[in-house]
Amino acid sequence: MPQLRQDPATKEWVIIATERAKRPEDFQLPEDSEHPNAKKSCPFCPGNESLAPDELFAFRTYDSKPNTPGWWIRVIPNKYPALIPAGNIKRLLIEEQFRYMDGVGEHEVLVESPEHEKTIATMDQKQVEEIFTAYRERYLTLKKDPRFEMIIIFKNHGRGAGTSLLHPHSQIIATPVTPMHVRYRVEEAMRYFDDNGECVYCAVLNKELKVKERIILETDNFVAKAPFASRSPFETMVLPKKHSSSFGHISVVETKELSYVMKQTLSKLHKALNNPAFNYIIYSAPCHEEDLEYFHWHIQIVPRVASVAGFEMGSGIYINTVIPEEAARFLRETKVS
Amino acid sequence: MPQLRQDPATKEWVIIATERAKRPEDFQLPEDSEHPNAKKSCPFCPGNESLAPDELFAFRTYDSKPNTPGWWIRVIPNKYPALIPAGNIKRLLIEEQFRYMDGVGEHEVLVESPEHEKTIATMDQKQVEEIFTAYRERYLTLKKDPRFEMIIIFKNHGRGAGTSLLHPHSQIIATPVTPMHVRYRVEEAMRYFDDNGECVYCAVLNKELKVKERIILETDNFVAKAPFASRSPFETMVLPKKHSSSFGHISVVETKELSYVMKQTLSKLHKALNNPAFNYIIYSAPCHEEDLEYFHWHIQIVPRVASVAGFEMGSGIYINTVIPEEAARFLRETKVS
Repeated sequence: MPQLRQDPATKEWVIIATERAKRPEDFQLPEDSEHPNAKKSCPFCPGNESLAPDELFAFRTYDSKPNTPGWWIRVIPNKYPALIPAGNIKRLLIEEQFRYMDGVGEHEVLVESPEHEKTIATMDQKQVEEIFTAYRERYLTLKKDPRFEMIIIFKNHGRGAGTSLLHPHSQIIATPVTPMHVRYRVEEAMRYFDDNGECVYCAVLNKELKVKERIILETDNFVAKAPFASRSPFETMVLPKKHSSSFGHISVVETKELSYVMKQTLSKLHKALNNPAFNYIIYSAPCHEEDLEYFHWHIQIVPRVASVAGFEMGSGIYINTVIPEEAARFLRETKVS
Repeated sequence: MPQLRQDPATKEWVIIATERAKRPEDFQLPEDSEHPNAKKSCPFCPGNESLAPDELFAFRTYDSKPNTPGWWIRVIPNKYPALIPAGNIKRLLIEEQFRYMDGVGEHEVLVESPEHEKTIATMDQKQVEEIFTAYRERYLTLKKDPRFEMIIIFKNHGRGAGTSLLHPHSQIIATPVTPMHVRYRVEEAMRYFDDNGECVYCAVLNKELKVKERIILETDNFVAKAPFASRSPFETMVLPKKHSSSFGHISVVETKELSYVMKQTLSKLHKALNNPAFNYIIYSAPCHEEDLEYFHWHIQIVPRVASVAGFEMGSGIYINTVIPEEAARFLRETKVS
């Protein structure tokens, strides 16, 4: 059973992932890069379904059976889950200062395509729509479980972004705690709302749409922009124009438009930076407080072209060597089909 | 002039480092690894002093001149500084939401040895003492500048920890802002103090010294331990037993003892994990509030054996695959001379 432990000084939670535990000795070896025969044994490739746990959800042809080929999107439990859907959500104490709990949650893998070497930038628009539609489905399903406080949908692309399997996939983790990281963000946004009577993300977005210099792409309902204080080169934020605090509120039609903005933005990054490693994360308000007038859901895309070192770890201040307005202009002017 | 920008939603500061600015196009190229002739052109090697800015401080033989060989520790300004000691500390606004200020600060490099291939684990104890004595000197000097709010001393060892030059060196950055990252930590510690009337770090340390299972090393005045909620495998915290909120308060004698604990701990990591990349950071209270009864200065050592991916970025929750008690036992039992 994985365990969640809280740091007594910072109140931050950490997952001690015993299911994927390594012995201390295992860290002496360098990590393998993908074996040339990886495709044959890739648990996400069609025909290899038996190598992965049973599917939770799929978009597949009507005549195909679960856990066999015929799918184009497939959601399965992570084979080495950080959290598992069992155990008790009660917080416990070992000694007075050491708070912990069972690692209750959900850890899913969303296989984005049957093709081992595709990535969103090189997929059809239709396939990308299906990915985002599946995100929405899983979000709405997981949200029904009252034990979950946060649902985090994210993607790691490329070794530099922390992925170990190259077959295109995203991950979904539901946690039984609201981390401090999220609490602080929500709290700051609340303070702004109390002072100004409007959502800080809406206020900033309206300014950005006027000054335009950090806008990368705009559709009727979504915007991709470089944040004013981008923490890393080419960091991009995608968000809805209309106020909404949770990705769970998105409609099916909006999902298609969002997937267009994401495909365009990721294609620009792919072309401009030559297929960089990147992460993206969908930030929503905590599941049990989904109608906040002061928080605005958004997607953060972080190309991993700079490294995080001691200064960033110690101060939380990132050093960005590219001026956000220039990054935005460069991406805006990168033409993709 | 570098610029500090504040994220309007999260209130986090970012340094836009124009002095080390890259054009967007530069990110298309992969980073070079160290050239075999790097030693000849290494700006930190003796004889190459003219390749670096003039030294600010050095331990050197009495008959040697500044900026020539004869030193064994040398502090120089960073050639590509993130912050520079000029400009105005006034916060300014571009539009109502966009707060920024000049990138006022100090960014120094501490060259730890004349030898290009040494690392603390392989240096003499005497040399390590000199490194920590020099940290103290620079801390006390920089603290006199009233413009600086935080002084962060840190080390990046190995490419995986974000260093670009292999010659052993640490860095010191003084910032004109107290980052939210630090404010949150100090605030949590304050809350604990208000509830319990004692420093949370002291309280936890006393428990740890009783239960012993997470202790790696202990001397009269210092302890190296695995945190209860270690965020990554083999994360180690070194801290003084006696309450003190700032590294600036350490005595010369204590500095020697601290350097012994650091050399022992880093040697254990070096041996146990086969010279891993790592960062360490000295955390102190902000410079203008150095006598806090609720904050406790400490050093965090993070071997970079796990990668930070989308989930960690989005939730702030780290997934650690090694049980902290096992990591501590493994390091405790690793014998070094």
